[in-house]
Amino acid sequence: MEAIGRRRWAIAEGYIPSESSFSNRELISHETACILNACEREAHIAITIFFVDREPVGPFRVTIPPRRTLHLRFNDLTDPEPVPRDTDYSSVFESDQPIIVQHTRLDSRKPEISLLSTTAYAEG
Amino acid sequence: MEAIGRRRWAIAEGYIPSESSFSNRELISHETACILNACEREAHIAITIFFVDREPVGPFRVTIPPRRTLHLRFNDLTDPEPVPRDTDYSSVFESDQPIIVQHTRLDSRKPEISLLSTTAYAEG
Amino acid sequence: MEAIGRRRWAIAEGYIPSESSFSNRELISHETACILNACEREAHIAITIFFVDREPVGPFRVTIPPRRTLHLRFNDLTDPEPVPRDTDYSSVFESDQPIIVQHTRLDSRKPEISLLSTTAYAEG
Amino acid sequence: MEAIGRRRWAIAEGYIPSESSFSNRELISHETACILNACEREAHIAITIFFVDREPVGPFRVTIPPRRTLHLRFNDLTDPEPVPRDTDYSSVFESDQPIIVQHTRLDSRKPEISLLSTTAYAEG
Repeated sequence: MEAIGRRRWAIAEGYIPSESSFSNRELISHETACILNACEREAHIAITIFFVDREPVGPFRVTIPPRRTLHLRFNDLTDPEPVPRDTDYSSVFESDQPIIVQHTRLDSRKPEISLLSTTAYAEG
Repeated sequence: MEAIGRRRWAIAEGYIPSESSFSNRELISHETACILNACEREAHIAITIFFVDREPVGPFRVTIPPRRTLHLRFNDLTDPEPVPRDTDYSSVFESDQPIIVQHTRLDSRKPEISLLSTTAYAEG
Repeated sequence: MEAIGRRRWAIAEGYIPSESSFSNRELISHETACILNACEREAHIAITIFFVDREPVGPFRVTIPPRRTLHLRFNDLTDPEPVPRDTDYSSVFESDQPIIVQHTRLDSRKPEISLLSTTAYAEG
Repeated sequence: MEAIGRRRWAIAEGYIPSESSFSNRELISHETACILNACEREAHIAITIFFVDREPVGPFRVTIPPRRTLHLRFNDLTDPEPVPRDTDYSSVFESDQPIIVQHTRLDSRKPEISLLSTTAYAEG
C-alpha cells in the first residue's frame, strides 16, 4: 500500500480520570492514542506530554512495525514517568514515517460509561 | 453537484465490543464507516483492516452508486473474513472517486449506550 | 474579523432516532449542523441530503447574517421535505461565503443521553 | 521542538447546559477549549464568541506560556462578559503563535455524564 499519513500530530485534550466503576482493563477509565502505521517501514515515534504549569515530559518512545496499528493507552506510559491522573495535559507525536493518530477517552467514573473520540491534528 | 471529497481515508481507532445490552440492530454494539459518494460516478472502494500483531486483511470491496451514502458496519464485513470482536484494529479506505468518510461507534455493553464519532483522516 | 472558513462542507454521518425519552426541545433526540458565519457578509447556504437508496433531496436553503451562528437542527428541516427518522443519510453544505460546520447528535432513546460531535469535512 | 499548529481556529458548536447533577468542578456541565502552545514563545490569544441573534462578544484574552497547555473552560470566561448558559454560540481563536485547539463538552444534566470532543477547524 502506498504510504498514508503525516509525521507530526497533536492532541490538545488530555485527562485521565483516577476513578473507575470497573476494574477490568476494557472498562477502566482510560485515554488512548490509536496510531496506524500503514506503510512498509517500521515507525519510530517520540511522544511529548505538555502540562499546565510545568515543563513537558518526554520523549516517550514507541515503535510500530510496518502494517500494524497500536492503540496506545496513556495510562500505560511509564518511561520517563507515568502520566498523572486527574490532570490536564496535551500530547505531540513525532514520527519518522507517516502515521495516523486518533484520540479516544473512555470515562467510567460513573457506571454508565461515556466515550469521546477525534482524529488528531496533523501536519508535516 | 461538483465532486467533493478525497480518495484515501484512514480511521486509526477501531474496536467492536462483543457484548451488547440489546439485540435489535439499532442498539447492538457496532462500528460504522459512513461513506458519502456525492459525485456522479459509481465509487469502488477497497478497505484494508490493520491489526496489532498480524498482517492486514483485505481488500474488503464495496461499491457505492452515484449520489448515495452507505453507512457500512464493520460488524457486517465477512469477505475475505469477519472483523474480530474485542480486538484493536484500524482501517484504510481507497476509492477511485472522491468520497467522504466518518467513523462512528455505538457501545451498548452497558444499557446506557455511548457514542463517539469523528471525520476520518483524508488525503489524495 | 478577517474571513475564516471554507465554502463546501460534508457530513457523512446522519441519523435521527425517532424515539426520545424526553419531550422538551433540549433533550429530544436530534442532529444539528452548527454553522458559523464569522465574516462580514450574509451567507447563503444550500444543503443537499443524500440517502442509501434514493436520489438526494434539496436544496434546503438557509441564510445566516454576518457575524452570526446558526445551530440548525436537521429535525427542523421541512422544505422541500422533512428528513426521515431512523434513516441513514449524509449532507453537503455549499455556501457563497466561508463558513465553519460542526456536526452534533444528541441521542435520548435511552434516558441516559449520549452525545457525539465532529468538525465536518471541508474543502473549497 | 519545532513549532506545530495554526494561528486561527474555530469551533462552530457551543452550548453550556445550566443544569448539572453534580456540584464538583470535575463533573459540573462544562465546555472546554483545550489549547496547546507547543512552541518556544508565549502565545497571546484573542477569543471571539458568536451568537444567533446579537453581535459577537470579545475579545476574551488568554496568554499561554511557551511549552504549556491550557484547558480553558468557557464557563470561566468573565471579561468582557460571561458566556450565557443554555444558549447556542460559536467561537473563533486568533493567536500570534501556532497553537492546537480541541473542543470538549461534559454534559451532566443527567447523572450519567455524556462527553463529546473534536479537533477544531484550523487555518492560517
